[in-house]
Amino acid sequence: MNIIDKYNKRAKKINSLLCIGLDTDFAKIPERFLKMEFPQFEFNKWIIGETHEYASAYKPNSAFYEARGEKGIKELKMTMEYLVKNHPDIFTILDAKRGDIGNTNNGYVDFVFDYLACDAITIHPYLGQEAVQPFLDRKDKCSIILCRTSNKGAGEFQDLEINKKRLWQIVAENVSKDWNKNKNCMLVVGATYPNEMKEIRKIAGDMTFLVPGIGAQGGDLKEVMKVGLNSEGLGLIINSSRGIIFSDSPKEEAEKLCEEIREYLK
Amino acid sequence: MNIIDKYNKRAKKINSLLCIGLDTDFAKIPERFLKMEFPQFEFNKWIIGETHEYASAYKPNSAFYEARGEKGIKELKMTMEYLVKNHPDIFTILDAKRGDIGNTNNGYVDFVFDYLACDAITIHPYLGQEAVQPFLDRKDKCSIILCRTSNKGAGEFQDLEINKKRLWQIVAENVSKDWNKNKNCMLVVGATYPNEMKEIRKIAGDMTFLVPGIGAQGGDLKEVMKVGLNSEGLGLIINSSRGIIFSDSPKEEAEKLCEEIREYLK
Repeated sequence: MNIIDKYNKRAKKINSLLCIGLDTDFAKIPERFLKMEFPQFEFNKWIIGETHEYASAYKPNSAFYEARGEKGIKELKMTMEYLVKNHPDIFTILDAKRGDIGNTNNGYVDFVFDYLACDAITIHPYLGQEAVQPFLDRKDKCSIILCRTSNKGAGEFQDLEINKKRLWQIVAENVSKDWNKNKNCMLVVGATYPNEMKEIRKIAGDMTFLVPGIGAQGGDLKEVMKVGLNSEGLGLIINSSRGIIFSDSPKEEAEKLCEEIREYLK
Repeated sequence: MNIIDKYNKRAKKINSLLCIGLDTDFAKIPERFLKMEFPQFEFNKWIIGETHEYASAYKPNSAFYEARGEKGIKELKMTMEYLVKNHPDIFTILDAKRGDIGNTNNGYVDFVFDYLACDAITIHPYLGQEAVQPFLDRKDKCSIILCRTSNKGAGEFQDLEINKKRLWQIVAENVSKDWNKNKNCMLVVGATYPNEMKEIRKIAGDMTFLVPGIGAQGGDLKEVMKVGLNSEGLGLIINSSRGIIFSDSPKEEAEKLCEEIREYLK
């Protein structure tokens, strides 16, 4: 099975495109977890228990675990082991935004795909395909390349105009044409830029987009669903992190966003 | 003291611009270290012992430690503690090539600047200054932004032409003009592209460049020294990793490259 089909299968099974971002900021974990031996892991386990029936994917962000050094890395691994054991059909993404020269990327491949056993990783395009090849060569895993990021200042370089095209358009073109030989690429396209998403959908055919920026960052779900779905009515991984995991009721917030997504899947 | 002066002071003191890359690939560590409890740390300690008199900086690459998960992170921290304790005047760089949205970058700041206590980190420019601000805000630490990378395929995006300028030129301009308010920025400029380095020196004034690509990647030291030095006869951090640490004699290789650099410092 192609790795992207793992996501599609789960999405169809539970009729959801929701990804829950495990941005488990230690400073924001409720106090009852802080007394436990593995607070980040226990918090994640609780979040997964509350939300898994709505989740087609989980996306831990590496930064929040690295912040605690070896302890955080251990609890990130415990989280991944828990997911693989208990919810093997849910797609997993390490939001790590890596990208070094080829020889060095092998180390990140070992960390994310083998040590952690994640299905996918997010990647910076700046060094080009030749550098990123160790990720792309893993046919059993998925590479999600930053194309149009969700942050306010994303345009500083991404909007630069090259021969009447923007940099993000060229990233989308190159990934679609050349990087995706193993049919294992996706693109990051922020919910906060629906016009760009519309253009990227034209360039990238049915490629799946990881969509951050709904919730805390202000992206509009309706706009995203209108311009982002692919010809199969899939092709989007709608992420929400802080808006769900640090809300008063993660279960209710996950259900609510899942139901909103389902409105557009009918 | 400005953080960049820490590097300059050490460079002047020992008359060297040499940075030794602690790319401690577990698969390449000599067998005698593998029996020890902390092989990566013990190897690094040995390398530091052999080479410190020639080293103005050390640069561990995070990928080779992450590849071993929590164990590697622990040994990376042990390496940094050893350096801070025994060689507090040597500049330290974590080659991590990070770059996320602002809120998330705080996690990387905690990891690299506080948990590991590194002086500097390498950073991807793709998300723009607004995202990178948490790194730049740390006046006591140094942000080294990827400008022209050393790899063969670097040009795929970096050479794109925007209004008669290349993308790497615009990165150099923006970092010089706007990102460097705290005078704590450097640029990554690969030794394999001396023509680009010459241009970047014109744009960036006396800014310091971290220069990978000497040795295993084929960069020419003479060319680099000719075009790269700044008006103070400094401004370069010449890195060699595999060519020194996995050679038959790291001490001899470090001394040799240091002497070659000194030829141009006279």
